[in-house]
Amino acid sequence: MGSSVLSNLPCAKEADAAPKLLIIMVGLPARGKSYIVRKLSRYLNWLQYEARVFNVGERRRAEAHVEQSGEKAEESHLSRGQFSSSAAFFDPTNADLVSARDQIALKTLDELLNWLSRQDSSSIGILDATNSTQERRQILLSHIRRKRGTLNEVLFIETCCFDQDILEHNFQLKLNGPDYRGQDPDEALRDFRQRVVFYEKSYVPLGEVEEQDKIPYLQVIDVGRKINTHLIQGYLSSRVVEYMLNFNLSERQIWIFSGGESIDDSAGRIGRRSDLTENGQRYAASLVRFIHGERERWEKKRQSHRTQNRDSTRFSVDDPTRKQDALHPQRHKNWSCPLDFCIWTSTMPQTTQTALGFCEKLFTKLQMKTLDDLNAGDMAGLTFEEIATSQPAVYTARKQHKLLYRWPGLGGECYVDLISRLRPVILELERRKDHVLLVTHRAVVRVLLSYFLDLRRDDLAEMVIPKNWGFCLKPTPYGIDFSAYSYRPESGTFCLEPGAQNKFFPS
Amino acid sequence: MGSSVLSNLPCAKEADAAPKLLIIMVGLPARGKSYIVRKLSRYLNWLQYEARVFNVGERRRAEAHVEQSGEKAEESHLSRGQFSSSAAFFDPTNADLVSARDQIALKTLDELLNWLSRQDSSSIGILDATNSTQERRQILLSHIRRKRGTLNEVLFIETCCFDQDILEHNFQLKLNGPDYRGQDPDEALRDFRQRVVFYEKSYVPLGEVEEQDKIPYLQVIDVGRKINTHLIQGYLSSRVVEYMLNFNLSERQIWIFSGGESIDDSAGRIGRRSDLTENGQRYAASLVRFIHGERERWEKKRQSHRTQNRDSTRFSVDDPTRKQDALHPQRHKNWSCPLDFCIWTSTMPQTTQTALGFCEKLFTKLQMKTLDDLNAGDMAGLTFEEIATSQPAVYTARKQHKLLYRWPGLGGECYVDLISRLRPVILELERRKDHVLLVTHRAVVRVLLSYFLDLRRDDLAEMVIPKNWGFCLKPTPYGIDFSAYSYRPESGTFCLEPGAQNKFFPS
Repeated sequence: MGSSVLSNLPCAKEADAAPKLLIIMVGLPARGKSYIVRKLSRYLNWLQYEARVFNVGERRRAEAHVEQSGEKAEESHLSRGQFSSSAAFFDPTNADLVSARDQIALKTLDELLNWLSRQDSSSIGILDATNSTQERRQILLSHIRRKRGTLNEVLFIETCCFDQDILEHNFQLKLNGPDYRGQDPDEALRDFRQRVVFYEKSYVPLGEVEEQDKIPYLQVIDVGRKINTHLIQGYLSSRVVEYMLNFNLSERQIWIFSGGESIDDSAGRIGRRSDLTENGQRYAASLVRFIHGERERWEKKRQSHRTQNRDSTRFSVDDPTRKQDALHPQRHKNWSCPLDFCIWTSTMPQTTQTALGFCEKLFTKLQMKTLDDLNAGDMAGLTFEEIATSQPAVYTARKQHKLLYRWPGLGGECYVDLISRLRPVILELERRKDHVLLVTHRAVVRVLLSYFLDLRRDDLAEMVIPKNWGFCLKPTPYGIDFSAYSYRPESGTFCLEPGAQNKFFPS
Repeated sequence: MGSSVLSNLPCAKEADAAPKLLIIMVGLPARGKSYIVRKLSRYLNWLQYEARVFNVGERRRAEAHVEQSGEKAEESHLSRGQFSSSAAFFDPTNADLVSARDQIALKTLDELLNWLSRQDSSSIGILDATNSTQERRQILLSHIRRKRGTLNEVLFIETCCFDQDILEHNFQLKLNGPDYRGQDPDEALRDFRQRVVFYEKSYVPLGEVEEQDKIPYLQVIDVGRKINTHLIQGYLSSRVVEYMLNFNLSERQIWIFSGGESIDDSAGRIGRRSDLTENGQRYAASLVRFIHGERERWEKKRQSHRTQNRDSTRFSVDDPTRKQDALHPQRHKNWSCPLDFCIWTSTMPQTTQTALGFCEKLFTKLQMKTLDDLNAGDMAGLTFEEIATSQPAVYTARKQHKLLYRWPGLGGECYVDLISRLRPVILELERRKDHVLLVTHRAVVRVLLSYFLDLRRDDLAEMVIPKNWGFCLKPTPYGIDFSAYSYRPESGTFCLEPGAQNKFFPS
């Protein structure tokens, strides 16, 4: 990747070498480490860094599986595979087991370090494990100092949770996790609680020792209620902290739509400001109806939740439907009053005209230059056929390097430029607790979706988004709920498209 | 200010009303509160919010002065005016004085609240005082709840300092402050230390009480070594935290230059990519020589500092020159090894060609699309005369509303757009500890300078920067050292221009 292309990501390149970051997670079980790790690596990959997660628990399970299938299972009431998932395996007073667990952690760290040293671009390796004792962290740090020659690249991220409701909810989620799948829920929960008790015995939160050793850290308490940072200085760790500061689990909807058909669209011309056609105006009217309907559905759901919760806000094992909701207390914080609904358009007529029908009293409308179409530079106003004919070199270069090829001419952009431009929009979407409808352009929709759907670099360039489709993203405790809707001009409606993601990549 | 113009500042407008923020500073004396307050309000004003500081100490001194000149001075060995600056005035066991100080604080708060309710745009009032007791903070909060009907707009910012070197340095700075100016230094220092002891007796850092009351806060410890946040959710407070995270006092140089004369420049044409003229190339060669020379001067200074500090790193009252350096321990952290030197250009030929002569081995070069010229849209390539003739309406609108008028056509920008585009650059400049040379365009130089020089809105639009001038900004413990250099084509040198700021605003 040439430096001229990444140039709009300020200081992707720091000093001579591409900077690396080695994130070590810290925290008791069920504190949301893996959730954070997934989200963070998704964001960093979207920013076009290489981020990879190395999970110690997965290695523990994989090794146990190998031993088991190699028929080395111990003489015990549990097979070796089961044993490594049971609470007893985490007994901190059993020196053999502590050492076995250290070995697994070091092997995983080695895998990470090998990967990190192979990367020639900026990259981030994330060690996902509890690392909740001083001893374990010291072992890891000496290993890193030996292998990398420095601790400058290390960033600890600790998640703590003092909110009993969140914790109880996380415990429940664990029962569906790989260690307990298929087991009796009551017994599994008992076993998992025992595992947590073992961890708590030897748990030391980040603090004085790391401060003496001058190791940067980030502490996230109760899903971002409090955030503590120590010695955050590097470019990559600043990006990480900035992202983690904009973090909430409130249930809400993020709608992403293109503007309706413009005059330029109908002629296949790209990149210019252009008014809606009659088709585009019909689409706009349908969108207003559709979003109004969806907003009403949400409001009804909210009101019925409130009524239910007046009777019982506590977790109840007997009622699975209520359980689902009671499980996640953070979500309920957003159910107490109607949510605001923001509409963000670009500054171009094809999107502002599409949003014209939304009433300013009900929706908070905002134009953002940040959401403008990918700037096609000198090619703006041409069709792809015209570009292919009149500028075959440009056409070919663009086709071959869609992600990195900047359209020639004043202001011309490539997809990576667009990512950099949209970073504040993503941070703002992560921060907000109300509904947002973005009405923007297909290139922008593509880049936003690639963030939410965790697409790889090549997928971003190759993805084909059907015309007049819109998308809804709902943050959930386990990730993101994604739905796609296609516009039906004959009825003026938007219809749910199940399995939409498969249609983005026609072979 | 129309919403379409501010549209590129994401969510300048939140919900219906323009959001307000009420920042209450907390911290013992000499913890850098006023420094932070000045810097923060400069940043927020630059982002085109209204931020104003209300300083309780200033009101205390002003009131004492009024009473004194009204000849109500008490029978005491000190005049009333002197008394209100002496340690005795801060005795927490004297209920009368506590109440007198509460009254001054409340009057200042009232002034702030009146100002805040008069503003119809997003705005930030900052109460600059110690507010170091629970009682005082409770008094302020009840007053705010009574007047504003809510505490949702409050953000506490506390500065703590555990680093004795920094503290000692701050104490020394206080002796030149308004309370002690012209007094015997030894006695002043003794008095000030006594004042701090009084404060320490009743000091309660932010924490449990604010967490129970769900009041957002930001704690800055040892100039950003540690940063703790609590319940940061609003748009404005997120901007504040983001800024405070990128904070360092390392001594370094930020150079801001335009590119050399381009072919378009020589014809008065604006906004396009354009190659350097021969004049421009000579300017480029001179710039390389000049920066090399300045970098060497810095390196020599650094080496002589190191030698000096080998002998004595401690503060010495006898030697005023050494004192000056010993005073600020943070600065020394940057003296231990040579600094990196980054060169950031835009992606346009006039700046990349200007930086061509800098050796890649000595300088870390980076092209940033963020530093591209203000996009002139359809007017790119025209002279101002041509615009005046062919598009008189555009010419007049632009002339009248330079700050807010977007050039028509694809990608056209106004100055406020440019501010929003340059925000990440400012944050990155604040974060870095090495030297940076920015080679960019005159509109960009103008916007960057307006940040560093704390220019008001109208000044930004009216400022005239002489052609081929460059600037150097050095962060210092008390603010920013600013120097301007003019290019002398006849000798190929850059000469220091004293009092340059006066020349920016010809009447």
